[in-house]
Amino acid sequence: MSGNTFGTVFKITTWGESHGPAVGVVVDGCPPRLPLDAAMIQAMLDRRRPGGSSASTGRKEPDQALILSGVFDGLTTGTPIMIMIHNRDADPGAYEHLADVYRPGHGDITYMDKYGIRDWRGGGRASARETAGRVAAGAVARALLQREHIGVWAYTIALGGVMAHERNLGVMDNNPYYCPDEQAAAAMEKRVEAVKKQGDSVGGIVEILARGVPKGLGEPVFDKLDADLAKALMSIGAIKGVEIGSGFQAPAMLGSRNNDPITPQGFLSNHAGGILAGISNGDDIVMRAAIKPIPSIRIEQHTIDTAGRPRTLSIKGRHDIAAIPRINVVCEAMVNLVLADHLLRQRAIQ
Amino acid sequence: MSGNTFGTVFKITTWGESHGPAVGVVVDGCPPRLPLDAAMIQAMLDRRRPGGSSASTGRKEPDQALILSGVFDGLTTGTPIMIMIHNRDADPGAYEHLADVYRPGHGDITYMDKYGIRDWRGGGRASARETAGRVAAGAVARALLQREHIGVWAYTIALGGVMAHERNLGVMDNNPYYCPDEQAAAAMEKRVEAVKKQGDSVGGIVEILARGVPKGLGEPVFDKLDADLAKALMSIGAIKGVEIGSGFQAPAMLGSRNNDPITPQGFLSNHAGGILAGISNGDDIVMRAAIKPIPSIRIEQHTIDTAGRPRTLSIKGRHDIAAIPRINVVCEAMVNLVLADHLLRQRAIQ
Amino acid sequence: MSGNTFGTVFKITTWGESHGPAVGVVVDGCPPRLPLDAAMIQAMLDRRRPGGSSASTGRKEPDQALILSGVFDGLTTGTPIMIMIHNRDADPGAYEHLADVYRPGHGDITYMDKYGIRDWRGGGRASARETAGRVAAGAVARALLQREHIGVWAYTIALGGVMAHERNLGVMDNNPYYCPDEQAAAAMEKRVEAVKKQGDSVGGIVEILARGVPKGLGEPVFDKLDADLAKALMSIGAIKGVEIGSGFQAPAMLGSRNNDPITPQGFLSNHAGGILAGISNGDDIVMRAAIKPIPSIRIEQHTIDTAGRPRTLSIKGRHDIAAIPRINVVCEAMVNLVLADHLLRQRAIQ
Amino acid sequence: MSGNTFGTVFKITTWGESHGPAVGVVVDGCPPRLPLDAAMIQAMLDRRRPGGSSASTGRKEPDQALILSGVFDGLTTGTPIMIMIHNRDADPGAYEHLADVYRPGHGDITYMDKYGIRDWRGGGRASARETAGRVAAGAVARALLQREHIGVWAYTIALGGVMAHERNLGVMDNNPYYCPDEQAAAAMEKRVEAVKKQGDSVGGIVEILARGVPKGLGEPVFDKLDADLAKALMSIGAIKGVEIGSGFQAPAMLGSRNNDPITPQGFLSNHAGGILAGISNGDDIVMRAAIKPIPSIRIEQHTIDTAGRPRTLSIKGRHDIAAIPRINVVCEAMVNLVLADHLLRQRAIQ
Repeated sequence: MSGNTFGTVFKITTWGESHGPAVGVVVDGCPPRLPLDAAMIQAMLDRRRPGGSSASTGRKEPDQALILSGVFDGLTTGTPIMIMIHNRDADPGAYEHLADVYRPGHGDITYMDKYGIRDWRGGGRASARETAGRVAAGAVARALLQREHIGVWAYTIALGGVMAHERNLGVMDNNPYYCPDEQAAAAMEKRVEAVKKQGDSVGGIVEILARGVPKGLGEPVFDKLDADLAKALMSIGAIKGVEIGSGFQAPAMLGSRNNDPITPQGFLSNHAGGILAGISNGDDIVMRAAIKPIPSIRIEQHTIDTAGRPRTLSIKGRHDIAAIPRINVVCEAMVNLVLADHLLRQRAIQ
Repeated sequence: MSGNTFGTVFKITTWGESHGPAVGVVVDGCPPRLPLDAAMIQAMLDRRRPGGSSASTGRKEPDQALILSGVFDGLTTGTPIMIMIHNRDADPGAYEHLADVYRPGHGDITYMDKYGIRDWRGGGRASARETAGRVAAGAVARALLQREHIGVWAYTIALGGVMAHERNLGVMDNNPYYCPDEQAAAAMEKRVEAVKKQGDSVGGIVEILARGVPKGLGEPVFDKLDADLAKALMSIGAIKGVEIGSGFQAPAMLGSRNNDPITPQGFLSNHAGGILAGISNGDDIVMRAAIKPIPSIRIEQHTIDTAGRPRTLSIKGRHDIAAIPRINVVCEAMVNLVLADHLLRQRAIQ
Repeated sequence: MSGNTFGTVFKITTWGESHGPAVGVVVDGCPPRLPLDAAMIQAMLDRRRPGGSSASTGRKEPDQALILSGVFDGLTTGTPIMIMIHNRDADPGAYEHLADVYRPGHGDITYMDKYGIRDWRGGGRASARETAGRVAAGAVARALLQREHIGVWAYTIALGGVMAHERNLGVMDNNPYYCPDEQAAAAMEKRVEAVKKQGDSVGGIVEILARGVPKGLGEPVFDKLDADLAKALMSIGAIKGVEIGSGFQAPAMLGSRNNDPITPQGFLSNHAGGILAGISNGDDIVMRAAIKPIPSIRIEQHTIDTAGRPRTLSIKGRHDIAAIPRINVVCEAMVNLVLADHLLRQRAIQ
Repeated sequence: MSGNTFGTVFKITTWGESHGPAVGVVVDGCPPRLPLDAAMIQAMLDRRRPGGSSASTGRKEPDQALILSGVFDGLTTGTPIMIMIHNRDADPGAYEHLADVYRPGHGDITYMDKYGIRDWRGGGRASARETAGRVAAGAVARALLQREHIGVWAYTIALGGVMAHERNLGVMDNNPYYCPDEQAAAAMEKRVEAVKKQGDSVGGIVEILARGVPKGLGEPVFDKLDADLAKALMSIGAIKGVEIGSGFQAPAMLGSRNNDPITPQGFLSNHAGGILAGISNGDDIVMRAAIKPIPSIRIEQHTIDTAGRPRTLSIKGRHDIAAIPRINVVCEAMVNLVLADHLLRQRAIQ
């Protein structure tokens, strides 16, 4: 009910604040006897860590994953898997000047509206640091999906107004933005550097591809696979829009064009994005998420303090210029979680 | 788990197939002593009925709402409200020629993949007729929200490639497409007529506005208000994309532009779309949904039969040219349901 | 949340009031391609109908089950199964004298405390008539379990102070109380007749046996199989206690006696009642439920009216003398529902 | 789904194994601004620790509660409260001789049946140590209930066949068994000492009293307050039966005796146990739970090893002679959790 749990069979609950002692996640419903170790989780967390690109904060977090339960002799036991990550570089003092002011574009003001109290240290629960738990859980889901030969990739197709024109997945790991277009990646880097100097920030678009998803996943009518994926992605703080297949291009297409013809060899096109009537059709699942620019900027902004008086604010602490590329692994994790959940849900009715 | 239930406190379960004896919904969790009668539900169902525009099917359904439980002396009792709508104009025979073929763009093939059986009569459970239950439940949610002075509108801002340039809500009820731009509405009508002659279909964009939503609704971190709204809308069959506030424009904006400055009088802009960090901020909630063209078209399409052999198919039965305008009230219903649910969820923690 | 839904994978939602137009149930999560027809449901409903014994009301309800969705060509389709039962013999007028008074032992006063409104016609939602929906849903669960060779029986081992000393299941259908001891059954009948003349009512104990349950069902730690069974039974209005295996005898036993020794051929005793640490062990599951006497009695009782003033009340309408034997099929249905649910839950993690 | 989560609004998820690094709980849905500190949790955990009575193990666990999230400046923030307790005295080596044998009366064999793998170190997840998380969460619920002037007590009314005849709650803290009858307490101590010498174990009965519960809590029809309480108690490993009010005495009572007469001053008796039709009536809630004897005994027992071969087993490690008195605080915690949950559930519909 309080919204910190996600999934039905493969279910996760995240906990923790940005500058508390730790953040973490409980994964419940993972099948037993799945090989799992801390290194598999660490590999994903490392992709979420800052430091890889010009766009990312200087916060230094080793982000070491500790598995505290649910694994025995290298195998899952079917009981809850608790994964904890200590907040080593927490520095609450650095945020004291933000204790009585609401940062524009952040949840500071709405958390106060909702709860009448807020942990102002680095955004508290609303911090992107919460996503470390999601990524850790996503790594468990990924282990389950890989056993079924399902793969998920989240790559950048737009950043700061620079669009990728290619989908060459082979090169996405060669640049810090997970961009499948090398020329675009170089232009993105320049754009980020320029905006950084202005003290501003940029947004972008992440495309997520899931390949090998078996036919038949997704539950009519409310828990359609695309509905659950949309929720999963929109639950990531910076995401303002989600589309699947032809998405926002579909409204201007004719039915004769948007329909994917069916042949004995499969679909001739994939405007559906791999999901028909909420159920996977065996084709690639292709989604895109619109990422807003990071709200923390050095440029002075108008806001109010907790007493309602006008203030101006320039945010000088360590923060990213773009949610990309760190958000990519979060998108991937959320998609992994939805697919793992629906894979198990489908088993239940067979 | 099987996905026919939506909501947590204000919870609905829809049931029924397109050409079975009836469709309906059970609304559970509605507070007691709310005035409710069949006419309030009927008013919403009437907006969903075909016949109002050139875009809609000729199927004649009186769609009469029967309240079978949960209301006593004109007031809700706090117990489940069951609303049933008979399928008067069901004509399963008209679909017999579709019993052994999969219609492109429909769930025929994926329902078979999932369940190994399908009710081929008019799409069975995957039919848009299922949304009658949602609209009936949405009318109950609407009654609850109106008591709190919350209003929701769903209007058409694009149809068949024609865009609305105005947001004059005062005129939306004067044209069959709920378009807030009269000139655009006229152009939409022409476009629909032209496409109808070609035997093709069109898509569009619906914008949904919620006004008067109190601050503080939405549950961090997974059940963010926008995440739940995104799921609610994406669970409607024809919707391929959802965005909030600046949505897919946000990726190309700078942070200094996308952030909404805060003043003692409120926010100076609404790029957030009324939701910050998943929690309503008191501003208008503004979302848009991308509607794909209706997949049932007269133009001949390639497909396969249930034995996997190639077939061509031209769909000549009664069907809409566009999901708009009938889908608008469904969008409105889904948003009403999410808001009613979060309104009650927020009470639980106070 | 509002408590009218039961189960997780195999999930039911009941609706309806005693003297409204109908009662019913939506069964969601039933696997597809299960043979199901109205007769299978009717057979169970017929066992719940009044008229079979001296203990039962004279209310005449044909209780005809109508399947309105989820079944196609005699097979379940995987979509929600809605079963409706009209209230043919509803006679709200007969209850008007109860509109302003609270019947002792009934929910009249607590429904008013909770909701500030109540449907006083025959107990409204709190009426045992609600269990018709449970029995209908239980029949669907039963069909699923029978395919797995799981059987459930609910028989009477005490009524009005008369105890059964035998467990001869072969004779339970030969007497109106489903008593597995013919001598006791005869004594029960005499006891009921005598109490009836006094205008009073009696309670009893129902024992429920589930045979053929596979090993491994039940979810640690909160959704233990016995915990879910206990809830299922305690959710039946008249039940005041539930025990499994040695139950309330266990507290006075020594560990060396209560433990069931394990041998290569199986357990040497069954004090556990077929469930160890919340998980089925393959042995018979044996539970007992304590049924309170029917609260509606002709004997005059002290109570208050809705204005809080003292009143005396003698209930002369049609009502049962004992919940047994009609409650037996309800107990059986609830156990069937829990087992079906856990059977499917276990599949999800494999 | 996997059963490690309990509650709907006030929701907890426990994690951890007996001899892993730690056990813990995530409490989600606790209202914000509730004063909470580690000492309030510690006080409850201390009552669960071994060492207080002859009946308890010699395992030395400081059981120090660490609050890792959800509390800021001594107040809850409305976000998940994670409480962790390190397993300081874990000694997995002591259990190696149990790695290939199933202890009678324990979940060893059923965990293997269910998962095909088990953590054999001290019972793993099935260990009573899991209840430390419940007690910690129960302390949070208790803080919430105390603000509403609701109190819960769990006292011993039978142990090893010795019955308490008084309910003098004033003396229950003066003896190690929380027995409200001082003479009985002395006899219980003697009985435990005697059984201990024999290498055997005993069971007992705990009565739980909740006072001050407001009228109107509990959700018809499945989530009746007594149904949820029954599940809560039956989910505790050692409990084999649960009853409320007149419980297993009700079956032999007449309706005229079991009904509680209503007067303007309240109910004249409390056979209902404070709950009518699943809804609290404002009276004391009184339940009793049957506790089986501890299955770990020194006396030699018949069992099998993991290869299915016959074995005999005498358990010599540290273990309790009775679950009482350590289980009392667990019962109290579970009742606190159910009441806190239903208190918040009721707010949601008002």
